Amino acid sequence: MGNEPLIDRRSRLLGKGAPLFYREPVHIVRGDGVWLYDADGKRYVDMYNNVPCVGHANPRVVEAIAQQTATLNVHSRYLHEGILDYAERLTGHHDPALTSVVFTCSGTEASEVALLMARAATEGRGIICSDGGYHGNSTEVRKLSRFRAGDNANPEFRAIPYPQTYRPLKNDADASELTNLYLAEVQKAIDDFSANDIPLAGMFVCSIFANEGLPNIPERFMKDAATLVRNAGGLFIADEVQAGFCRTGRWWGYETSDFVPDIVTMGKPMGNGLPLAGVAAPTELVDVFREHTGYFNTFASSPLQAAVGSAVLDIIEEDDLPKSVTEVGAYLRTALRELQETHERMGDIRGHGLAIGIDWVLERESKTPDREGAADIANRIKDKGFLLSNMGSFGNMLKIRPPLVFGREHADLFLTAFEETLREL
Amino acid sequence: MGNEPLIDRRSRLLGKGAPLFYREPVHIVRGDGVWLYDADGKRYVDMYNNVPCVGHANPRVVEAIAQQTATLNVHSRYLHEGILDYAERLTGHHDPALTSVVFTCSGTEASEVALLMARAATEGRGIICSDGGYHGNSTEVRKLSRFRAGDNANPEFRAIPYPQTYRPLKNDADASELTNLYLAEVQKAIDDFSANDIPLAGMFVCSIFANEGLPNIPERFMKDAATLVRNAGGLFIADEVQAGFCRTGRWWGYETSDFVPDIVTMGKPMGNGLPLAGVAAPTELVDVFREHTGYFNTFASSPLQAAVGSAVLDIIEEDDLPKSVTEVGAYLRTALRELQETHERMGDIRGHGLAIGIDWVLERESKTPDREGAADIANRIKDKGFLLSNMGSFGNMLKIRPPLVFGREHADLFLTAFEETLREL
Repeated sequence: MGNEPLIDRRSRLLGKGAPLFYREPVHIVRGDGVWLYDADGKRYVDMYNNVPCVGHANPRVVEAIAQQTATLNVHSRYLHEGILDYAERLTGHHDPALTSVVFTCSGTEASEVALLMARAATEGRGIICSDGGYHGNSTEVRKLSRFRAGDNANPEFRAIPYPQTYRPLKNDADASELTNLYLAEVQKAIDDFSANDIPLAGMFVCSIFANEGLPNIPERFMKDAATLVRNAGGLFIADEVQAGFCRTGRWWGYETSDFVPDIVTMGKPMGNGLPLAGVAAPTELVDVFREHTGYFNTFASSPLQAAVGSAVLDIIEEDDLPKSVTEVGAYLRTALRELQETHERMGDIRGHGLAIGIDWVLERESKTPDREGAADIANRIKDKGFLLSNMGSFGNMLKIRPPLVFGREHADLFLTAFEETLREL
Repeated sequence: MGNEPLIDRRSRLLGKGAPLFYREPVHIVRGDGVWLYDADGKRYVDMYNNVPCVGHANPRVVEAIAQQTATLNVHSRYLHEGILDYAERLTGHHDPALTSVVFTCSGTEASEVALLMARAATEGRGIICSDGGYHGNSTEVRKLSRFRAGDNANPEFRAIPYPQTYRPLKNDADASELTNLYLAEVQKAIDDFSANDIPLAGMFVCSIFANEGLPNIPERFMKDAATLVRNAGGLFIADEVQAGFCRTGRWWGYETSDFVPDIVTMGKPMGNGLPLAGVAAPTELVDVFREHTGYFNTFASSPLQAAVGSAVLDIIEEDDLPKSVTEVGAYLRTALRELQETHERMGDIRGHGLAIGIDWVLERESKTPDREGAADIANRIKDKGFLLSNMGSFGNMLKIRPPLVFGREHADLFLTAFEETLREL
């Protein structure tokens, strides 16, 4: 209740409805590694924030940001080697087909660039998306975000049911049949555009369907969907804003499905909190994009973005975070699956690396999503000093997505508190 | 020629057509106040960059960015006082009607928010813009940028000829008649939307028409245009991305036309180079916007944006930059007008504070815009150590827009070099 005047002030200055987490919002004043501290000195293990991927207040990031700000930070219409060195390193971590980068300030701007690029390169307009994704907050990108099935307000966008095995399109389908059912939805969207004389531009989905709920993606779906899209003249755009930068234990989410997208968007963890995002694609596609748009972004491709982005790469590489993420993620999922054996409400444990979801259900058999139950857990565990959230297309997924420097010791602390929370239900 | 390998590398990594200034691009490696240094140690007076408004590598900004990065930088769904303190100070500099702020990362994102806000609040769609403006690079915002007269590709956008006195709609019109002619264009757009059953959302223009060419705006145009728009159910959106933060010597460009917009976008100088932008509006409009959109921006409203934005306000206030900008701007314009007396090609000297344009013409009588001549001057003066550019709807405006800390001593250096350049033509 002590925060009420602060909340009132916030509503006045930022408007009512500026989103806040938790029944009683947390007033955070300091961060350090995986730890966040509130105004009363209470500390929390941050199990939600993927942006500060190398840890809150990472001293090497602080040093990079301070040093570059003290040296030079200017727009990109002068030559600067820093951004080229960074682009070279970044594309070096991607599939060899993705050779050039357009830098932006936010994931939304990256989505905008990807849409403009796909449409310029294909001369098409139609975009296939999923029915539970989120790709940003601009007028155009909102059209492929939080798409509701059957929403025909925007003729240039069609949503498919996102691929999954937990609540599949058909319950008794075997693996191969299920994949084909989801692929048929992609083909249906392609045919529907064609029937309406809307040339296809592409398909735009998160590589791991993070907002949809981190589903197990039916085998070969991504690869074969990309083929269907390409055969129809479109490009496959993978949103790696959440999946990228080793979140899954692999550098990119698309590696977990063993396919290569034509265009990749990147964001959140890229600058550890400095606004930094971008799009990687073959140089030919970037050339076409630039020719069509004359794109310029005042704050992007800057020496500051380059320095901070490079520092993040340094830390990920030198500390071998992919290895640690893989190990700690597997450890945590295994422990959660053990808990699941005796806890009916934990319907499913999914994810890769340190992107983990617990599908919270009313009971195991029906798999009925329990949004309120998941939100209740998030609030209870927050009081015990662990920050997570609930998400997914039903809002019933407990979302575990800590900084990549989250270790086994933090997992143990969480597991103890989580088990205690389960006992108290 | 020494830069050619760097340019090739840039084309490969960032794509061909990533924009660069000058016939021989400058390779900048360091900045300090109004000075920029290239890789060969040559120094330039920066007369172009409005983003580093309190100077390149300003030590107080460096301190703020380093300290906040070392303390906390996290998204806005936790409570934080920094962003509220900053919003309070920022709205305190605005007209009392503008009480709340939505923060974003870029001017493009601010334009997106303004469009979504105006459309949500009015339930209208139609946007009146000018025929030479630029408001950002997203799909929707591009529709009101670099608008060509007669372009009917986007039925929800109509452009008016931007108001000016140098090449006016009618040559022999007196001041009042000219204002009425431009107002009639606004009314025509309103009527045209109405005839096409497109309800009006608003009018969206830069307060000083910076990209159009910094025209002298016919008296009472802005105020009366806002009234016409409001009477038709629309809102007046002022783009202050270039005009704001004391560029004109006043805090906001709208003060130079003595009117109050309904919605204001802000950007470029706001964070001295840190991606920071936003929209100020009455709380009621922000409430409606948030209710309609559920807007959230990962990197915006952050403690880092707050700290850096506050440091910029500190410096502007403590160093009384509005006073200095007014004085140095007047000094520079007066000196340029003296040069104009003997230099036929300087068709017109315009602007406010440190936003100054020289309208470069083939000869005084015809006022024929000379884009190549202006570009040639920009290149010649660059070689003498002064960075400026050419812009405007004809590309023939020499654009003088230095950091706000540009002083009389820098103006004198420039005037000497500029006079020398004129003699060498």
